Amino acid sequence: MTSVDLNPAIWPKSALRGANGELHLAGNSVTELAKKFETPLYLYDADEILARANQMRSAFLAQPIQCDVHYASKAFLSKAVAKIIQSAGLYLDVASGGELAIAMAANFDPARIAFHGNNKSAFELETAVNAGVGHIIVDSLDEIELLAEITSRLDKKQRIMIRATLGINAETHEYISTAHEDQKFGLSASNGALLAAAKEVVGHSGLELIGLHSHIGSQVLVLDGFVAAAAKLVEQTALINKTFNLSLNTVGLGGGFGIAYVDSDKPVSIEEIAKVLNQTVIEQAKIHGVVISKITVEPGRYIVGPPGVTLYTVGTVKPVSLIDGGTRLYVSVDGGMSDNIRTALYDANYTAILANRISTAPLVLSRVVGKHCESGDIVVRDCYLPSDISNGDLIAVAATGAYCRSMSSQYNGTPRPAVVGITNQQPAIWLRRETYEDLLALDLG
Amino acid sequence: MTSVDLNPAIWPKSALRGANGELHLAGNSVTELAKKFETPLYLYDADEILARANQMRSAFLAQPIQCDVHYASKAFLSKAVAKIIQSAGLYLDVASGGELAIAMAANFDPARIAFHGNNKSAFELETAVNAGVGHIIVDSLDEIELLAEITSRLDKKQRIMIRATLGINAETHEYISTAHEDQKFGLSASNGALLAAAKEVVGHSGLELIGLHSHIGSQVLVLDGFVAAAAKLVEQTALINKTFNLSLNTVGLGGGFGIAYVDSDKPVSIEEIAKVLNQTVIEQAKIHGVVISKITVEPGRYIVGPPGVTLYTVGTVKPVSLIDGGTRLYVSVDGGMSDNIRTALYDANYTAILANRISTAPLVLSRVVGKHCESGDIVVRDCYLPSDISNGDLIAVAATGAYCRSMSSQYNGTPRPAVVGITNQQPAIWLRRETYEDLLALDLG
Repeated sequence: MTSVDLNPAIWPKSALRGANGELHLAGNSVTELAKKFETPLYLYDADEILARANQMRSAFLAQPIQCDVHYASKAFLSKAVAKIIQSAGLYLDVASGGELAIAMAANFDPARIAFHGNNKSAFELETAVNAGVGHIIVDSLDEIELLAEITSRLDKKQRIMIRATLGINAETHEYISTAHEDQKFGLSASNGALLAAAKEVVGHSGLELIGLHSHIGSQVLVLDGFVAAAAKLVEQTALINKTFNLSLNTVGLGGGFGIAYVDSDKPVSIEEIAKVLNQTVIEQAKIHGVVISKITVEPGRYIVGPPGVTLYTVGTVKPVSLIDGGTRLYVSVDGGMSDNIRTALYDANYTAILANRISTAPLVLSRVVGKHCESGDIVVRDCYLPSDISNGDLIAVAATGAYCRSMSSQYNGTPRPAVVGITNQQPAIWLRRETYEDLLALDLG
Repeated sequence: MTSVDLNPAIWPKSALRGANGELHLAGNSVTELAKKFETPLYLYDADEILARANQMRSAFLAQPIQCDVHYASKAFLSKAVAKIIQSAGLYLDVASGGELAIAMAANFDPARIAFHGNNKSAFELETAVNAGVGHIIVDSLDEIELLAEITSRLDKKQRIMIRATLGINAETHEYISTAHEDQKFGLSASNGALLAAAKEVVGHSGLELIGLHSHIGSQVLVLDGFVAAAAKLVEQTALINKTFNLSLNTVGLGGGFGIAYVDSDKPVSIEEIAKVLNQTVIEQAKIHGVVISKITVEPGRYIVGPPGVTLYTVGTVKPVSLIDGGTRLYVSVDGGMSDNIRTALYDANYTAILANRISTAPLVLSRVVGKHCESGDIVVRDCYLPSDISNGDLIAVAATGAYCRSMSSQYNGTPRPAVVGITNQQPAIWLRRETYEDLLALDLG
């Protein structure tokens, strides 16, 4: 076995090329997996999910300030994943009643669940309070009033954090940049909304404020934004403590820790992030005269992204002439934008390889496209694949564990692929493949 | 009842403001609909779907060349819609085995179904041949060989069209522009692939070539691309007839007829399109010495887009300060990118109104956003809503009938909304609302 063409920053550590050149994942040949579970297929190396959860916890444990690591379940949630997260001693973030329902179905300890969202419904908030979630990150004055009413009516006390907007521009796609002013999340520190929210909160005995929260965005590859947000959050915590005579000592630093999708992506190591965030909080706490004894972080993609690989079968292969005189090989696979919308939605890049064999044919400029009825149905925009790739070959796309299944659709009447997790070399179906019958299940027509 | 603020080019004709200012759709008040079916809610004026199908058929019937109008089901397909399309005497386009399964479940006559797609599987092709679909639009040499093998093995004869790439740049979003060279669809007229495909087809007795097909893209608002494609298609038909001594007399002109989403959208009327396409085909046929006695067109969005309206309930309302000193009102609704990805995916524009009442409050710059955990979760990027809009109000978004439900996801654990169709003023559930249980239905965890 060799990992010669498999960048370990992109592929799961268990991804290896067998003697015949075939890709193996967590001890299983992709041909066998495709035969047994069909394609397209979402594969997870479950041991790597656990390892990355542990790595994240250890990185922050090694630093002076206590840290609760919350898995951001929006990246991908199923009962099996919730169980792995719980077994690793992580907390869980949910952002809807639906995510909470899945977590509860997996028997995740509600006291270790945090509830996010810019527009939680009264039903969702009441469900969360009744379930006894650890804390709720409130996002607006409307929500604070609503939650106060609910806790009062239920005679419950609910721990909360306030989502702060800190005017930070994260270096990422604008759709997933979330702490600048002109977006829907949080309460602005600069226009007084954050102070007004804190004032509202302290007036309600059913709400126990534990700290402020910030999330600057997703897939952030540089430190600057994280550092700026942490500093600003400590400053705002000091201000609120002083203004309302509180002793908040927790800051919620959010997630957004980027991963490598292609060779050129160079994310900062999580150990470096943990160190710098701790240094920043300690320095700023000293400057602003506040004691910060706990931080929270919320990785999602970092934990489930790299352990996920999507397996496709090649169908039509078509060389297309380009204006510059060159050729692009269009390699159609049996999935597409229904199982991975990220390429079209965020102009995301991915790494694709011929997976069932090694070819010595020359590598040619290629585009992996799906089977959907539109030209934006692209899985991997630019890659180099062997010129002899053909119908029936398998293609593996790396780092598809986050935001692919969770954003999947049934566009063009496409049943969603199965999700298979491999634990200790044993594959098991986490989410079964949909059928044509499933496409009709809601149809009362 | 009045339609004073409802541009009839955008809203269903049955959309009216009642005495109290409330929006009524096909005789039903939105408050009653929201109460009965909850929100978010996809609503269709079924009579308007039928009317638009009939309008499309009549527009082409009024012209000299016979025309088969195919409804492009990828825009939205459920059994009820398939039945309306069949009752209007239209044909149906499917682009996958899943869409075919839904059509068959609605007892749609398979002989009136055409099967599209750049990467149909052997299973899909065999299913289509066995079902007896009217014709299959083949998209590659691989597919022609595969289909020839299947028809030979099953001893069947299958009518086909060949999808041609004509080097036309449609004026629309690049993701939905589909006849330029550098994309996955079709066989290029310029590099000989189209001729090679025709040669391959005529060598197989199980394949009956009925003509060439082109589809330049979606949501096209100007005539030029349609005209250029029709002209080129006739030219290529003449060339193929001459080269292979055939007498192809049908051209498939595709769809892509744009609709108005906002006041500034000014689509060409379908009557004008029908007239100009007929003129073009007749002229070009004369020039190239070929007889074209039939065309096909494939509207999807044109038929179901405008009859569809999405109804949301307002949650959090939050004014946000802009850099220029102004304010933008962020109005969060109970759905978002899970039920309408088009805003984020194509930078699409929509029209939103306060639906449960008329307000005399000043209109302010607003953005309708969803409840999902990302800043790109925008339903309507820029609109003006009354400044007193608040929690519990209803918002209606127009022209959401196409590519909203069909591309919907369960992102953030969001059950997909119900689809309600209103026929002769009677609302009926076409697709029932998903539940939290549905989110767990595939989970073998």
